[in-house]
Amino acid sequence: MILSGWVLRRRDHGGVIFIDLRDRSGVVQVVFEPKTAPEAHELAHSLKPEYVLSVRGRVRRRPEGMENPKLPTGEIEVEAHELEVLNTSKTPPFPLDEEVPVSEALRLKYRYLDLRRPGGLEPLIFRHRVAQLARQFLNEQGFLEIETPFLTKSTPEGARDYLVPSRLYPGKFYALPQSPQLFKQILMVAGVERYYQIVRCFRDEDLRADRQPEFTQLDLEMSFVDEEDVMGLMEELMVYIFRETLGVELKRPFPRITYEEALSRYGTDRPDLRFGLELVEVSDIFRGTSFKVFAQVLERGGMIKGLCAPSDFSRKELDELTAFVGEFGAKGLAWIKVREDGFQSPIVKFFSEESLQKLREIFNPKPGSTLFFVADDPSVVNEALSELRKHLAERLDLIPEKDFKFCWIVDFPLVEWDEDEGRYVAVHHPFTSPKEEDMPFLEENPERVRSRAYDLVLNGIEIGGGSIRIHRKEVQDRVFKLLKISEEEAQEKFGFLLEALEYGAPPHGGLAFGFDRLVMLMAGRNSIREVIAFPKTQRAQCLLTGAPAPVTMEQLMEVHLLPGWEEE
Amino acid sequence: MILSGWVLRRRDHGGVIFIDLRDRSGVVQVVFEPKTAPEAHELAHSLKPEYVLSVRGRVRRRPEGMENPKLPTGEIEVEAHELEVLNTSKTPPFPLDEEVPVSEALRLKYRYLDLRRPGGLEPLIFRHRVAQLARQFLNEQGFLEIETPFLTKSTPEGARDYLVPSRLYPGKFYALPQSPQLFKQILMVAGVERYYQIVRCFRDEDLRADRQPEFTQLDLEMSFVDEEDVMGLMEELMVYIFRETLGVELKRPFPRITYEEALSRYGTDRPDLRFGLELVEVSDIFRGTSFKVFAQVLERGGMIKGLCAPSDFSRKELDELTAFVGEFGAKGLAWIKVREDGFQSPIVKFFSEESLQKLREIFNPKPGSTLFFVADDPSVVNEALSELRKHLAERLDLIPEKDFKFCWIVDFPLVEWDEDEGRYVAVHHPFTSPKEEDMPFLEENPERVRSRAYDLVLNGIEIGGGSIRIHRKEVQDRVFKLLKISEEEAQEKFGFLLEALEYGAPPHGGLAFGFDRLVMLMAGRNSIREVIAFPKTQRAQCLLTGAPAPVTMEQLMEVHLLPGWEEE
Repeated sequence: MILSGWVLRRRDHGGVIFIDLRDRSGVVQVVFEPKTAPEAHELAHSLKPEYVLSVRGRVRRRPEGMENPKLPTGEIEVEAHELEVLNTSKTPPFPLDEEVPVSEALRLKYRYLDLRRPGGLEPLIFRHRVAQLARQFLNEQGFLEIETPFLTKSTPEGARDYLVPSRLYPGKFYALPQSPQLFKQILMVAGVERYYQIVRCFRDEDLRADRQPEFTQLDLEMSFVDEEDVMGLMEELMVYIFRETLGVELKRPFPRITYEEALSRYGTDRPDLRFGLELVEVSDIFRGTSFKVFAQVLERGGMIKGLCAPSDFSRKELDELTAFVGEFGAKGLAWIKVREDGFQSPIVKFFSEESLQKLREIFNPKPGSTLFFVADDPSVVNEALSELRKHLAERLDLIPEKDFKFCWIVDFPLVEWDEDEGRYVAVHHPFTSPKEEDMPFLEENPERVRSRAYDLVLNGIEIGGGSIRIHRKEVQDRVFKLLKISEEEAQEKFGFLLEALEYGAPPHGGLAFGFDRLVMLMAGRNSIREVIAFPKTQRAQCLLTGAPAPVTMEQLMEVHLLPGWEEE
Repeated sequence: MILSGWVLRRRDHGGVIFIDLRDRSGVVQVVFEPKTAPEAHELAHSLKPEYVLSVRGRVRRRPEGMENPKLPTGEIEVEAHELEVLNTSKTPPFPLDEEVPVSEALRLKYRYLDLRRPGGLEPLIFRHRVAQLARQFLNEQGFLEIETPFLTKSTPEGARDYLVPSRLYPGKFYALPQSPQLFKQILMVAGVERYYQIVRCFRDEDLRADRQPEFTQLDLEMSFVDEEDVMGLMEELMVYIFRETLGVELKRPFPRITYEEALSRYGTDRPDLRFGLELVEVSDIFRGTSFKVFAQVLERGGMIKGLCAPSDFSRKELDELTAFVGEFGAKGLAWIKVREDGFQSPIVKFFSEESLQKLREIFNPKPGSTLFFVADDPSVVNEALSELRKHLAERLDLIPEKDFKFCWIVDFPLVEWDEDEGRYVAVHHPFTSPKEEDMPFLEENPERVRSRAYDLVLNGIEIGGGSIRIHRKEVQDRVFKLLKISEEEAQEKFGFLLEALEYGAPPHGGLAFGFDRLVMLMAGRNSIREVIAFPKTQRAQCLLTGAPAPVTMEQLMEVHLLPGWEEE
């Protein structure tokens, strides 16, 4: 047989040379013996890590006692007869045969070596599997995979577009798609009925947390459906993929939680359901208290919420937690320790026995627990306690391993007031359908109008979002009016969609998964960069190729542009 | 049952309303009877073409004599019980129920209506099938589908890049990939061994013929392979796809034709093998002739080639054909008519009987045929006769229908002299490996060096091309030197690949199919625009969305650019 691969290690032992030869499928031991193959043995002396070999030889059982139970191929070895060195290698900038910590910058610059490390290709192989399974499922459900354009039109009302200057049309630009939203709606109007695509999307945002300027969506859209149709099918898709890849059996239906309830119980519309620590509003309990901080907040219309952590904390730890919520704008963190003999806290003295009794009823705290409270404006309270909740869950090790807890968030408000812009903006996007029963309030009481949107949350991370779209021109017109998008502006930006709605647009809706995030969570990784073959840094650079990079003045002038930057 | 779809036609007949209801799967007749369902019948009076309906009803056999054998559902009809009008429609700008000619511009602007016409979605459904089959085949062969970046680095030596200005790095730009060439090579160095991707590529070329600024490649790469491995597997892929979609059984192996032979016999490296009309060089036959035109061409180092068309042509037709080859630079077209009693042509008198006899032996022409000759520089002769060959085949109806003739073109020259640039340029790309046995000539006689490239040609159209790549740094350096790419330039543009070659790059090679073209040919269409959901025009415009379009000054300044165009 002929084996090809890379030298992982070389060991010389009693005149015999042992090579651990690695390829995509694993590692096998190759033995060069001076007697069996003198030429190959001689050549094998020159082998160094990462040399590329082709070996002709014979598979045999390893001598008794020489088996390596740690290797899948540990019972056998290859007796080499011929050796060809296909390529040599310099010494890699970091060792590939051990799990040594290497800076991410160095790994990204030498991504091809990083991927050669043990398990390096696993996330990409896993990603491949997930993509194929998703396609297989959707193909069987009658979906058509259809490619939509990348050189398209700038349609703001979302994140910032990446622009591509046109050479043929001076002063005109293409934009890279933030998502195929408008095209997939057009495909529904075209009668496609079921569309999907695994597609790259682009957002020129300030990159915080775990974002990439280009990312992949599993995007789909269906005609003649309602919310339950889409959510149901997406659950089936998740069940299928999780079963086939991880052997995990997900329970259906996934819980549906309204936006209001999610905010109330978890302080966020992306709740992590793998653990408790639920928030409870206690404003009413403390109304009229003599504790000034609480009283003042309630007087100015703020709220108080609390949660119960099943642990005691030292003074130092409490200070740390107070600083932690401070990062999210909370001006303080009130706490009450629960002892066998009652509550203990500097603030307990301000509260009536009746209030304390109510706290006991609500949180039913065991001795040794601690109650935490934040009093502030609702948005601050929710963010601070939501973050505290996650922080405590990690700190107290309350999150079960390999647990996958899905939920749908539904009944989002259609719009929210944007203070900076002085107008209502869409919570999702302006093509999201309002609920039929809320339509009467669209003009008079828009904040009351709920949308037909649904977000899919897994372990506290939004992995998908979608909605039933507006398919009637008159509704779309009313929503644009509400969003203060003038007829002229709407025409210029989305004119083609508005026109399409007038030619027999069917009811339709869909969803887009953040494919990188989904794969990341399934693969148990901490960053989407780990499941992307060539990720960019948080600062949108490709350390491998050096993109972005300067271009020539000639290239710039060809697209009718002049430098607007200051030369350094 | 509930049916949803679009009104294709309405007919009122004897108080009964017949609706042809259309969805993606086809057309069915829905009957509204005043007695059975008075409300639905009443509402059905308002129905117009392209209204969107939901109908609840019962399937029944059509009354005897009322069957429509032209429809797959022609034996049945749906007796409507309830009707809901989901949306109305304005009168479409062109009728959707008949095959009337509509300008392409109008079809592209109303692409969603164009796709709703009979058979409109077929090319997209077919494309979907081909994509899934290709993936299925490659998955089974151990290929991994891996996504490569779209925001990457400008690497000229090829077509013009589309640029994407960076906001975070003033004066720096991303480029959209012309192909994932460098990334797939890096993946091989990373140990992926078998990679593929169905991926969008971008070239900002002057759009001639049937090009699109963005197009799709089926791109793949393999490690530890030679030419035959890649070509063999690609043949298997084609056999599989053609069998599963068209029921066509392709014969393997596909013919391999050297570049030299293709040029000699067909005048082109993209020969259409569905018909004969082969070219033959006859320079030697006419050497020393007294026919001045031929003699002069031969004296200055030109050539004469001819072909035999199995038809007679009128004087007018011969003039047309002369004008035709004139478009390709030929200064004339010599012809000899073959009669029962011998050759007939104004130029026959210049030729010896020996020459004429040789022509007879070469072309073995039947009476009624015509021999054509072009004498000129080889490039002109080949282009003119290659085009004439195709033109005659169509004109004389020599091309069998639904015939698929593949061939591989191999043994390309590695480089060719570029008069404008005053240097050798790569015939394929600079990463193409020279043939081992030609390596000694690389410096001294580069035009003699053949590459390890192979192009796949189907019915005269190049549908794929690839090569075994250079995997040794020293060979890559020698090729760059030959191409007058300085070390500095190479470092700046491809430094990361050069460096990767030094860390154990395996031998590797691959291929990229023009996926749009492949699907077009298989579907029997005339333009790739017909198999693309949202094609752009020949002038790179999207008539549906209006891309490219102006952006705001603010958007421009955010990416540190200034207008370099003149305001109109």
